[in-house]
Order: sequence, then structure tokens, then C-alpha cells
Amino acid sequence: MATGSTLVLVHGFWHGSWCWSEVMPHLAAAGRRAVAVDLAGHGLYARRPRWFAGRTADPEAVDTEVSPVGGVSLDDAAALLTSQLARIGGGAPVTVLAHSAAGAVLTRVAERTPGLLAHAVYLAAYMPASDVPAVAYNRVPEAADGEVGPLLRGDPVRTGALRLDLATDDPAHRRRLREAFYGDVDPALAEAATGLLTPDAPVGILTGATTLTGNGWGSVPRTYLHCARDRALRPAVQARFVAEADAAFPGNPTSVVTLDASHSPFLSMPGELAETVLTLG
Amino acid sequence: MATGSTLVLVHGFWHGSWCWSEVMPHLAAAGRRAVAVDLAGHGLYARRPRWFAGRTADPEAVDTEVSPVGGVSLDDAAALLTSQLARIGGGAPVTVLAHSAAGAVLTRVAERTPGLLAHAVYLAAYMPASDVPAVAYNRVPEAADGEVGPLLRGDPVRTGALRLDLATDDPAHRRRLREAFYGDVDPALAEAATGLLTPDAPVGILTGATTLTGNGWGSVPRTYLHCARDRALRPAVQARFVAEADAAFPGNPTSVVTLDASHSPFLSMPGELAETVLTLG
Repeated sequence: MATGSTLVLVHGFWHGSWCWSEVMPHLAAAGRRAVAVDLAGHGLYARRPRWFAGRTADPEAVDTEVSPVGGVSLDDAAALLTSQLARIGGGAPVTVLAHSAAGAVLTRVAERTPGLLAHAVYLAAYMPASDVPAVAYNRVPEAADGEVGPLLRGDPVRTGALRLDLATDDPAHRRRLREAFYGDVDPALAEAATGLLTPDAPVGILTGATTLTGNGWGSVPRTYLHCARDRALRPAVQARFVAEADAAFPGNPTSVVTLDASHSPFLSMPGELAETVLTLG
Repeated sequence: MATGSTLVLVHGFWHGSWCWSEVMPHLAAAGRRAVAVDLAGHGLYARRPRWFAGRTADPEAVDTEVSPVGGVSLDDAAALLTSQLARIGGGAPVTVLAHSAAGAVLTRVAERTPGLLAHAVYLAAYMPASDVPAVAYNRVPEAADGEVGPLLRGDPVRTGALRLDLATDDPAHRRRLREAFYGDVDPALAEAATGLLTPDAPVGILTGATTLTGNGWGSVPRTYLHCARDRALRPAVQARFVAEADAAFPGNPTSVVTLDASHSPFLSMPGELAETVLTLG
């Protein structure tokens, strides 16, 4: 059976390897090896704040408790992903599909160790320009109507985290959360996914920046999977990433494929997403 | 690169596809295609009870609320796994590694559609004899000192679920939970895993039974990965499964490999578990 490079799937903030479960069977059916890993501070590496652990927690702590993953930096996340790619590839370059915040980590790893990568694929992901921290793109005009910011709790400078209050059963809050991330996802599936989210994502992953070079990140083939109905990372911000990258590295332009999807096509159109990734080789 | 049949990994009660994340990189590094799926009522198919969703839930509901997955039966779980195996294998037989309660589902699928399976691997899993519901093995003398039963809340006949109270921050309860499932797992990793568990597992998966035949389940090569320090599904119960199977189908004896592990070698010894599975072909 024909196979391309091994695929490594990296989820975004608050998610985990579990979010690709509906995509993986399609990849395997096509004979492709694929592995979903956990990002630093997430999945099996998550550490939950005390306010989230039990029913009796201090309700004010959601805004003030210092996050147990608050110390995780872009350096840390890149070191973990680098070791995962090295183990999975066993010396051969792999294709990385990075969602959302994982894009910043992919960019760092591609710059520092381009030989690990056959192809860098950004799925509605942060793809920051040289020396620009990813978090800066949350403050550009194109991001003004993004729906995640208003859901965050506490001051990231104090807590170290971008924090979602996932312990509330306020129906309005839960609806806004679903609309921000999972607008085109079956509501029961979206609720199951919400139940697997971790409340704290390390803000340090987005405040770090990477100097990009032509022999580093600029040398790696890249594709941007643009999600046209994304209410978390707005389509205009996604377009800005591509424009900036192509201006900086015109000799290696970004391939762009558009999906008519929310921020979470791995849940709303897993078969179509898998097909798209498979056609990239 | 040499590859065997595609591996399909199926987690046990309360877990999800996420629990294999530390195992998968080892399998990919060896060139093996592997996919972790969600069991019916779990992972992306989980539905959480109301008492678990928010801080303000009625504390008595943990013992009384009818589970939103209470209607899931062994038939349902087998239908889902059958469709997953058919999609993943694309017509070719696959090797299924089933953990704990997923063993009952694997047994049903192997009996009804043996052609889907290259090899049935039971990892500290229920492997019930013909016409015996898996739940009956929780009441045999060998199971008397199992540590999960005392942690369960409510009456499964009423709620439809084997229910864990995962919303409590009582330290003694959380320690017992960790010891039952994750005795040899790094405590921080065990805590991250506990944060991903779903509170309700459909008891119907264990109350169903399957009539086993020589041309069905009895025809499929099988291996039992025996976990010698298991405090959830006791080693003596695991040994009973193998003894009963070999007595019923002496022409197709069970291969047994022993791991010096708790109920969760996918967390405590993922590399060793992967190596063991890879040697099965």
C-alpha cells in the first residue's frame, strides 16, 4: 500500500490527542501512518488548577489561582514536540499538522530543526511572522470579533494561563463556548469534546517568538488549511499569516486550501479533512 | 519498512482514545500503523450526567441520576467497533488490542465477524466464557479484593452506569482511585489521566453475553497480556479467563505474556507495552 511520510497531528489550546479520533480511521484506511500527540501542558501532560478539581472550590479562584502549567514556555513546548517528532520519525522527516496554538510550536521546531519536517501544515493555526509572538495576533484589527477572548477568565500575566471556566453549568456560557469553537459540530459531539478540554493553556506558548530564516522555517514546504467559518481564529487573521509569510519568503509560497468549516473541522468534517491532508502527500 | 496488520487500540471503561498517547509514538517508530478508537459511550461518544457538569449540582444526584449513556448495550458497542474495524482495515483484517471492559466488546465482534480480525489481544481485559456476562466475573471469589467496586456510586440497575465520582476533591477518594487504576504510574501523569476520565460507563456492555463457537471467536488467534500487579481486574481473574478459554477451545490455546504492571501499562510502561505488541506480529 502506498504511504507518504508519517503524519503527526498536534491539537491546539485546551484540547488533546483525543480531538483527532474521528480523523484517524480515515488516514489508516488510506494506508497512512499517523500519530496524534499531546502538546506541552495538555492531554496527559495537563495539570489542572485546584478550583477545577472539586465541587467545593473557592469560586473566586477561577480568576486568581496561579496555573500549574503557567510556567510552560514556547521553548518547553518546542522541546517536547521535537522529541516526539524524532521518536516517531525514527530519523525520517514527518509531516506535522498543527491546529491553532500548536502552529506557534510547529514554527519554532521547523525553524530550529527543519530536517525533521517533510511538510508543515497549519490548520486554522497561528503562523506568526519572524520575531512576532503569536499572542500579538489576538490584538490585530482582523481579530477584533474573535469569540474566544471574551470567554477567558483571570489575568494571564498573573495566572500564566489562558483559562476557560469549564466547571460552570451556566447555559449561556456553555453555548458561547460551543459557538466559538464548535459552531458546525453536532451539539452532542461538541458537548463530549467540551468535557475533555483542560481549563488552563500555558500563555507562554503564545508569548514566545521565533526568528525565522530562509534556511530554517523558510525552507520547509508549508500548507495553510484555511477555515472559512472560524469564529475563534478569524479567517482574516488566517489570511494575514499567509500574506506575511509569502511576503517574507516569496521563494517558498504557502499552499492554501480552504475548508468551509468552523475552528474544528476534525469534529465537523473529519473525512473531508483527512482527504485534504492525504492529497498533500 | 516492514509492517504487520493495522493495530486498533480500544480503551476500557471511563477512559478514551487519549490513554494510548504514550504508546502510539513507539508503534509508529517501528513502522506500524495503529489507530486508537473511542468505545461506545466514551471519549467523543461520552455523555456526561448533569451532576458532573457544574459546581452547583445536587450532591445526591451522583447516586441517583439516570445516566445519559445508561442505554448503551453490548450490541451497540459491538456495532460501533465493527464499523470502526471495517473502516480502518478497509477489507483487511486488523489486530485489536482491547483493554479491560473493551474485552467483552472484542469477544462479541470476534465471534460475529471473525474475518475482521487478524489477532485478538486482551490487555488486562474481560474475556468472558460463552454465554457468561462479563459482569459476572466481578462476583467470583478471585475478584473479592478488586479495588474498583468500592469506588462506584449509585445502583447500576437504576442509573444504567458504573459511575465514578470524579467531581470530588476528597484526597482519600482520589488516592484510592489512583491506587486502583494507576498504582505504578507517575502521580502527575495519573492525575492528568484522571482528569480525562468520564464518570459514567454503560453497565450494559458488561451485562450482555455472547455465545462462543469454534468457527467464530474460537477461530481467532488470541493473546492475553496479563498484568501481574493489577488491583482493578485482579490477576487471578485474568488467569481464570485464560483457563476457561483454553478449556473450551483447546485447539486454539491462548498465548500469554505477563507484564509486571498495574491495570494501566499504557501509562506506566508504554515502551515495553508497545514492544510486546509489536512482537505479536
